Amino acid sequence: EDQVIVFSKRIENGFTQRPTSFVKFICELIGTLIFVFFGAGCAAKYPDLLTVSTAHGLVTIWLVYVFGPISGGHFNAGVTIAFALTGKMKKYEIIGYLISQCIGALIAGAFLLLLYDKTTGLGTPTLALGTTTVLQGFFIEFLCTMFISFIIFFTTTYQSHKEAALPIGLAVFSSFLVGADRDGAALNVWRWLGPAVASQTFKYYSWIYIAGPIGGFIVGYIAFFLYRRIWNWNIQQLILANPFRGYRCSC
Amino acid sequence: EDQVIVFSKRIENGFTQRPTSFVKFICELIGTLIFVFFGAGCAAKYPDLLTVSTAHGLVTIWLVYVFGPISGGHFNAGVTIAFALTGKMKKYEIIGYLISQCIGALIAGAFLLLLYDKTTGLGTPTLALGTTTVLQGFFIEFLCTMFISFIIFFTTTYQSHKEAALPIGLAVFSSFLVGADRDGAALNVWRWLGPAVASQTFKYYSWIYIAGPIGGFIVGYIAFFLYRRIWNWNIQQLILANPFRGYRCSC
Amino acid sequence: EDQVIVFSKRIENGFTQRPTSFVKFICELIGTLIFVFFGAGCAAKYPDLLTVSTAHGLVTIWLVYVFGPISGGHFNAGVTIAFALTGKMKKYEIIGYLISQCIGALIAGAFLLLLYDKTTGLGTPTLALGTTTVLQGFFIEFLCTMFISFIIFFTTTYQSHKEAALPIGLAVFSSFLVGADRDGAALNVWRWLGPAVASQTFKYYSWIYIAGPIGGFIVGYIAFFLYRRIWNWNIQQLILANPFRGYRCSC
Amino acid sequence: EDQVIVFSKRIENGFTQRPTSFVKFICELIGTLIFVFFGAGCAAKYPDLLTVSTAHGLVTIWLVYVFGPISGGHFNAGVTIAFALTGKMKKYEIIGYLISQCIGALIAGAFLLLLYDKTTGLGTPTLALGTTTVLQGFFIEFLCTMFISFIIFFTTTYQSHKEAALPIGLAVFSSFLVGADRDGAALNVWRWLGPAVASQTFKYYSWIYIAGPIGGFIVGYIAFFLYRRIWNWNIQQLILANPFRGYRCSC
Repeated sequence: EDQVIVFSKRIENGFTQRPTSFVKFICELIGTLIFVFFGAGCAAKYPDLLTVSTAHGLVTIWLVYVFGPISGGHFNAGVTIAFALTGKMKKYEIIGYLISQCIGALIAGAFLLLLYDKTTGLGTPTLALGTTTVLQGFFIEFLCTMFISFIIFFTTTYQSHKEAALPIGLAVFSSFLVGADRDGAALNVWRWLGPAVASQTFKYYSWIYIAGPIGGFIVGYIAFFLYRRIWNWNIQQLILANPFRGYRCSC
Repeated sequence: EDQVIVFSKRIENGFTQRPTSFVKFICELIGTLIFVFFGAGCAAKYPDLLTVSTAHGLVTIWLVYVFGPISGGHFNAGVTIAFALTGKMKKYEIIGYLISQCIGALIAGAFLLLLYDKTTGLGTPTLALGTTTVLQGFFIEFLCTMFISFIIFFTTTYQSHKEAALPIGLAVFSSFLVGADRDGAALNVWRWLGPAVASQTFKYYSWIYIAGPIGGFIVGYIAFFLYRRIWNWNIQQLILANPFRGYRCSC
Repeated sequence: EDQVIVFSKRIENGFTQRPTSFVKFICELIGTLIFVFFGAGCAAKYPDLLTVSTAHGLVTIWLVYVFGPISGGHFNAGVTIAFALTGKMKKYEIIGYLISQCIGALIAGAFLLLLYDKTTGLGTPTLALGTTTVLQGFFIEFLCTMFISFIIFFTTTYQSHKEAALPIGLAVFSSFLVGADRDGAALNVWRWLGPAVASQTFKYYSWIYIAGPIGGFIVGYIAFFLYRRIWNWNIQQLILANPFRGYRCSC
Repeated sequence: EDQVIVFSKRIENGFTQRPTSFVKFICELIGTLIFVFFGAGCAAKYPDLLTVSTAHGLVTIWLVYVFGPISGGHFNAGVTIAFALTGKMKKYEIIGYLISQCIGALIAGAFLLLLYDKTTGLGTPTLALGTTTVLQGFFIEFLCTMFISFIIFFTTTYQSHKEAALPIGLAVFSSFLVGADRDGAALNVWRWLGPAVASQTFKYYSWIYIAGPIGGFIVGYIAFFLYRRIWNWNIQQLILANPFRGYRCSC
């Protein structure tokens, strides 16, 4: 019902059909562009932990709120790959999402060059090498995205994207509060790629910003999958335990 | 239906008719006054990046939430000009909005004189000249308002102003996190004009606070317009591809 | 309808009747206690501007959200006096609200003595005398509460208290961002009285924390009253301009 | 009705039955794990008061929002013990909740060892001994949890967990703003236990993180219980005062 109202409101405003795959790709492109632009655009100034976490947390809330109902609001290679595993996305959609996101991140990097000198690094995540080892950096990326992944799958199973925007954005916020001042906290391949390409900042440990989020989102999805299995598993036990269970339905 | 309840609630509280244009003008006047008063009133103390961004982001959320259902919650010459381009506003409304906003901003400037010494600049945005060039300042104003403009047009097409208050306010918040410590981040002609007139702070680069937001909001609207075109464009393709498409409606 | 559901939910949870005046007084007592405890309890440590503003803004949001539907969520002598002017409150209710709030504030002061040494001032608002004159302090109290008052009256005319909690709380947040580091920003007689009595901190300028908020809330109410007059005023014009207006109803 | 929609949405997403007790235990385990991981994971870096309070406040909001509808969202021995007093929880559920929460906290401690050196204390709450006595530390734990407890019981009597997530999370936020820089503010036995076991940080005053929250949550529940008594008490008075009250129903 809610969706019907939203759709009639859209038509009234000149949107005459449901979004096509191409529209979704544009959403992912713009969304990733915005995430990288506002996230890296704040991080490029090396602000304190709370400021940089606020920047990434808030932009996630409003992006998922605005674009979530159209494209699902991935903006993240890890999220798209994890959703690909569910089998609900078509092959060309998966590839289209990833390419669109990549283009968005690269445009964001180009925009950042208009605002900052290249030597600032443009907000490319970097390890605080004195206090954080590469392995710790990997675990920050991996564990935080694992939790975010579980939350994304769980909240979107019984809530609209608009309702899920708050918990997902706040989970990103919490993750940055743990990681932003230690490994730079990309939590997203594109968040690293955009400014890294534009500022040509590549480090020997940059793999953690690719392997960490993708691995974390996949493991988070697997955890959610097992969780759903456990949730549904008991019903069979109950049926075995009480073979006459069906009769009670007539009461 | 929701609007009916709201309206009956209003009547119960003594509002016996729908808001007239004049009521909308007053809303824009008060809203712009409040935005400039609380925004510049915090910025006048030169607080850190997060504090000044919070001040502008939060005041936007509650202003759009409160006054959005009445006047649309522009409070910004750029927004009004962009909405004027949609052709939905009448000429006298456009002029009335702009004049009301301007008066509100000037009153806010006068109020700030009661709180601060004129020499503080009263929160007039200024370039951090050591780190930011005038061109970079222009791009901050232009790009951030471009994104905000797209978000405003997109969210208000399928959501009420009360629902749109959060994403719009947070987009302003994110923009200040990128720009507030570099070019002062007006993102709004009135936000610059109010304190600038009251403290007589005019710089050679002040044009960026006029051209940046107005240009950004117009380009953001054009981007939204093209986006809606793309959204609707495919339906025609589908019709051409399947001329019997209409028959399926009877199934 | 929403209220019916809420009420049936309450009955289910053991609340068998609508709240009496006495229950409302207890709500005001607890609410004022909580506001002063968490507000002054943070301010007593002299944190930075954003921290102390967050403390007061957030506690206002959740207090109005929780207690607003019961007692209206005043927690403030200024708000109660302004509502008294509307003529909708009974005399014994006005007095009961004020006494309850006062007791709550004094208990909060006593609780603060358990947490802090008396010499800290327990978060009693004080002027930053180097940068702020007494008159500026008065204007901060007066102008901020004037805006908050207008917002309270306006939002509660067409929204539930739960919906109004966010804009009201954020307006308090914005006000503290303007005033907290200059005059201590009570914006509330009880917020000043509770810690002032407990720590025996009385200054020659303490009157601003009484006159400012009460004056501001009254003027804000008058502004709202005039605003509603203007809103309704045109309908009479229309009637005079078109005496046969009533006939059109039958179409 | 809302619950029906949620449930049908869940079934559509592969959740074929209502959550069993075992599913609730897993929710409590994961939730406590997340609370301790993100809370202590930020506190381990000894950030400023606002940052550490934000970390704990926000994680509470999204945890209660996500897991509240399933398990009630306790994640806290004090909350579970207070709810046990209501008589609505079964004995095995109480024990299952406490054990699950404990396991979650211990796993969080193990995860933190992957991110931080043991010598950091892993965010174990500690008294700021120069400024805070042990007794003051106890009162911070006790009073803050007392207020939170009252709010939890009150809000969940007439609101869904999703609606209650905001006020509860913000109340935790406010509490940390009062306590985080003085006694470390656990407000939760598990928040202390997890990092304390992993980093083997045990102090002579550690009892305050056990006795404070448990005592506070119990007293908060008793206060709520008395409050509900007072609320319902007057109806009997009214009946006695007007024995013909029932007749008026027919009017």
